Amino acid sequence: MRSFEVKNRTSTDEIKSLRLITAIKTPYLPDGRFDLEAYDALVNMQIQDGADGVIVGGTTGEGQLMSWDEHIMLIGHTINCFGTSIKVIGNTGSNSTREAIHATEQGFAVGMHAALHINPYYGKTSQEGMVSHFKCVLPMGPTIIYNVPSRTGQDIPPIVIQSLAENTNLAGVKECVGHDRVKEYTKNDITVWSGNDDECHISRWEHGATGVISVTSNLVPGLMRQLMFEGKNPSLDAKLLPLMKWLFCEPNPIGINTALAQLGVIRPVFRLPYVPLPLAKRVEFVNLVKDIGRENFIGEKDVQVLDDDDFILVGRY
Amino acid sequence: MRSFEVKNRTSTDEIKSLRLITAIKTPYLPDGRFDLEAYDALVNMQIQDGADGVIVGGTTGEGQLMSWDEHIMLIGHTINCFGTSIKVIGNTGSNSTREAIHATEQGFAVGMHAALHINPYYGKTSQEGMVSHFKCVLPMGPTIIYNVPSRTGQDIPPIVIQSLAENTNLAGVKECVGHDRVKEYTKNDITVWSGNDDECHISRWEHGATGVISVTSNLVPGLMRQLMFEGKNPSLDAKLLPLMKWLFCEPNPIGINTALAQLGVIRPVFRLPYVPLPLAKRVEFVNLVKDIGRENFIGEKDVQVLDDDDFILVGRY
Amino acid sequence: MRSFEVKNRTSTDEIKSLRLITAIKTPYLPDGRFDLEAYDALVNMQIQDGADGVIVGGTTGEGQLMSWDEHIMLIGHTINCFGTSIKVIGNTGSNSTREAIHATEQGFAVGMHAALHINPYYGKTSQEGMVSHFKCVLPMGPTIIYNVPSRTGQDIPPIVIQSLAENTNLAGVKECVGHDRVKEYTKNDITVWSGNDDECHISRWEHGATGVISVTSNLVPGLMRQLMFEGKNPSLDAKLLPLMKWLFCEPNPIGINTALAQLGVIRPVFRLPYVPLPLAKRVEFVNLVKDIGRENFIGEKDVQVLDDDDFILVGRY
Amino acid sequence: MRSFEVKNRTSTDEIKSLRLITAIKTPYLPDGRFDLEAYDALVNMQIQDGADGVIVGGTTGEGQLMSWDEHIMLIGHTINCFGTSIKVIGNTGSNSTREAIHATEQGFAVGMHAALHINPYYGKTSQEGMVSHFKCVLPMGPTIIYNVPSRTGQDIPPIVIQSLAENTNLAGVKECVGHDRVKEYTKNDITVWSGNDDECHISRWEHGATGVISVTSNLVPGLMRQLMFEGKNPSLDAKLLPLMKWLFCEPNPIGINTALAQLGVIRPVFRLPYVPLPLAKRVEFVNLVKDIGRENFIGEKDVQVLDDDDFILVGRY
Repeated sequence: MRSFEVKNRTSTDEIKSLRLITAIKTPYLPDGRFDLEAYDALVNMQIQDGADGVIVGGTTGEGQLMSWDEHIMLIGHTINCFGTSIKVIGNTGSNSTREAIHATEQGFAVGMHAALHINPYYGKTSQEGMVSHFKCVLPMGPTIIYNVPSRTGQDIPPIVIQSLAENTNLAGVKECVGHDRVKEYTKNDITVWSGNDDECHISRWEHGATGVISVTSNLVPGLMRQLMFEGKNPSLDAKLLPLMKWLFCEPNPIGINTALAQLGVIRPVFRLPYVPLPLAKRVEFVNLVKDIGRENFIGEKDVQVLDDDDFILVGRY
Repeated sequence: MRSFEVKNRTSTDEIKSLRLITAIKTPYLPDGRFDLEAYDALVNMQIQDGADGVIVGGTTGEGQLMSWDEHIMLIGHTINCFGTSIKVIGNTGSNSTREAIHATEQGFAVGMHAALHINPYYGKTSQEGMVSHFKCVLPMGPTIIYNVPSRTGQDIPPIVIQSLAENTNLAGVKECVGHDRVKEYTKNDITVWSGNDDECHISRWEHGATGVISVTSNLVPGLMRQLMFEGKNPSLDAKLLPLMKWLFCEPNPIGINTALAQLGVIRPVFRLPYVPLPLAKRVEFVNLVKDIGRENFIGEKDVQVLDDDDFILVGRY
Repeated sequence: MRSFEVKNRTSTDEIKSLRLITAIKTPYLPDGRFDLEAYDALVNMQIQDGADGVIVGGTTGEGQLMSWDEHIMLIGHTINCFGTSIKVIGNTGSNSTREAIHATEQGFAVGMHAALHINPYYGKTSQEGMVSHFKCVLPMGPTIIYNVPSRTGQDIPPIVIQSLAENTNLAGVKECVGHDRVKEYTKNDITVWSGNDDECHISRWEHGATGVISVTSNLVPGLMRQLMFEGKNPSLDAKLLPLMKWLFCEPNPIGINTALAQLGVIRPVFRLPYVPLPLAKRVEFVNLVKDIGRENFIGEKDVQVLDDDDFILVGRY
Repeated sequence: MRSFEVKNRTSTDEIKSLRLITAIKTPYLPDGRFDLEAYDALVNMQIQDGADGVIVGGTTGEGQLMSWDEHIMLIGHTINCFGTSIKVIGNTGSNSTREAIHATEQGFAVGMHAALHINPYYGKTSQEGMVSHFKCVLPMGPTIIYNVPSRTGQDIPPIVIQSLAENTNLAGVKECVGHDRVKEYTKNDITVWSGNDDECHISRWEHGATGVISVTSNLVPGLMRQLMFEGKNPSLDAKLLPLMKWLFCEPNPIGINTALAQLGVIRPVFRLPYVPLPLAKRVEFVNLVKDIGRENFIGEKDVQVLDDDDFILVGRY
């Protein structure tokens, strides 16, 4: 079902060169539908502050809570509005090979620049099954493979990546396992993006990682750009570490959702099973913003400690 | 769920000015999925030969045989690849108000320039229900309303259109009821596109219609452009009439599907319940092409009389 | 994908013998989801008052406003709760052959006794296409074909039915075209149910129709049973005629939805594009109930003239 | 959307008393659709050999590879055909609260006796989010909560279960964490089913577990019944251990799928990302069958070492 129209087509090499990719938050209206105005503003701030790419509907963007038609629509929307200013990488992965095939085909058809693919989480499979899964989707276009055993329950071992590496569509790996794994890949010329914000600076400058696929950059894209582009800067890295720890005190995207609501750049609407961080943590965030400097965060409103009642949690949407 | 990003945004007035809109055919692969390469070629030929717009997933494009995710994907694809060269009008209408709302919201989100809306066919409703239905979708963007009682079982009376006319998103009406109805609208400054190829020339030049939403232009876009742009030309109109009659000898898109396959610009794949025209009709088509001139039709292959066995009919896809 | 488990399996002959089949109303909760408690009560009243079967998700039951998963769920629910007391016929027809195949396969898998199939409305097709469409679904189980040109825009001619008649799954035809067509079928031993309440008594007793697939029986199942089972009764037929005319003063199911709400047996919730009948008509209904006798109608509450404000219209659900 | 029809309604206490629940395999046709004939045969063998219940579309049954409409259809089918002979527990859990709500509502509407609910895998959430998630679905009917951190990446801590225990719909926990956790629950009167076949006998007889939700019982339901019903039997437990180890040498359901194909009770069709065990392992299985006794396994054909070519792997279905 491929299209050879050249509009928006991107080479694997272009994907390999991206340093700061933001796993962009999906904001919601009070009834749980997408808040596209807020979304557009978020993406525009990423562009303005120097992100190279966005992951649409990643785990941070809550792709796991979207219907596929919502998800593909959001990819198409993003490409249509921002595709000439930023690389758009659709998370069209799934633990179902059928769904991954269908979504990836659709994502490339609406113009996404690359796909992000996870190994089959929860259902899991054998190493051979993993390879078969990825081989179904790799021919469709530039692809980043995502390894996050703490979510999937199963590591993608380097041998799987190596067996796929001859496919010219493989752009690289978003790796969360740690510095040693990063090094193992980069010394074999496999492009790596760190999937751990708190490790990304060292991965980048000491272990050969190309960049980061970041959650924190939703908040402070300019500072994350400094970490990725402007050489070693341990003091900046250290300055951001408490924010990163705060963001991951509960499973992501709980922290980032809470933070963006407190910054006034999204409505305080959560799709369940996500719920906001408790009050004490919300107070902490205000202090973190003060420490790092409000001007380094996106948005222009004062950061606020929201009340429990300010949040809307939606189960049916 | 609106986005205010200006990319591809089109004013209602721009829609009102379109003269030749092609209800574009959706071609298929042998397994029934979209053949996007063939589709892209079809759209490119429309652009090259002077069509102003395309209807994506109209009854000609078999929107009624698409899942909504396929349908929205195709709209997003078309906008992404061709949106700067031609106006893209998504047929996001439905007999279910819920589906019409959802699809129209998604269609505009992926960048379509305008929506085509049908009244609730089959299920039908009261005049008041019809108005309520259209009022749910009109606020979303430029809209063409489509009246084709021979398909819907129910006329949209002028009073319904008039009650909607104050909404600045109403671009006009695709009307199939005949010249008198066309006149009634155009004298009241309501933009009309003829929905009947065999009447469109006279509607345009004698009754004030702005243009046509055409099936025939899938085959002969250049000649249809002449009919719409270059003044009265009864001899050209007469020359095309046998082709138009042939195209509608069975419910559209049976004729156009058969014709495009014979011209070698699409694979001879039909999604059921459509089946090709019989052999005798296929022979007739070859003769019609010769009479009108192969060079006036799209594509470059010789026109062929396909065998029954050449066609693939798919029920599951 | 067939199952040969015998539970609930019904022969075509059993379907052929049904005289009073109610095209059952689907009631809604205020948010537009199904109101299963009200639905169960409606079905129980049908069983109690002598209906032989129900059509689930017919045009009366607003199958056209359901997602397929809702629709199949409702068929499964009905079979599960009532399948030993009444025959459950799922309207798994569609103008898309793919959807008809999928839904019919699923409907029989969850145990429905028979399928109702419409010809491809709106999109329409050739006679050959119509036959191909029906032939895709007929092998799956007992089937009633539904002909209602005023909705579909296309008559199913007798030659189509005859070409399908050798399939032992064809139970018969729900025919809306009139007495002559009914006669044409019954004299050729094709089972017919009238699709027009106002003609059904005469079709039954003078033209050989087996029975009726009725809207009116939602309200007065006992009286409709008399019309179908207890011999000619012109005075009862005449007594019900004003009610039938009232029910069809706007496209069905607008009248029946309004009536059932006024009887207090469903919540006054409409899925758009349906809207209630206007006040004057609602007053008329109260008088019709008085004329015919409240005791002949289902439910036990007083019939009411509801206010405009009592109705809830839902577009998103 | 509840229905109060009593047909098939089951009390939480009845669910609490089930000892042998089989996580039933879903067999496929060569095109990837369900093979309902083979499925029905599998369920019948479970009934005949003494299983008390089946999980429909569990991870073993590959619910993660089903569309929701397939999944609910299969639940409805199972209830309809077998609901009076065996308890039918639908795995209507999801990492999306919306999907879990919708599926559970539909599953109970088609008559399932109980729901199986997983915590939000992959996306994960906070403890508070977990509780909120379960509280959305618990009111709908009898519920078993499933804890399998090796798949979900996140343990459900006892405090979560305790906070839900006052809801009378909570039947108990399918627990995979080990004997200590089992004991912790059973001493607090929380019903537990072992989720680990190799531990279930000891959990049952030494730690108070009620029973097992078993994969192995797909193959040897009679022997598993002995383990659960007939008192301590260490020699039988030991005899089955090699089979259990074999079944879980790769992520389940790879082993069970391979085994059932080798026994000739299902077609050798795999939905990707699952692929069969390699030849050496298939030879091992034949020997295991001989050791344990062919007569203790379901089916009547000779066990076979299938060739690689015998297997069909489907990605699109």
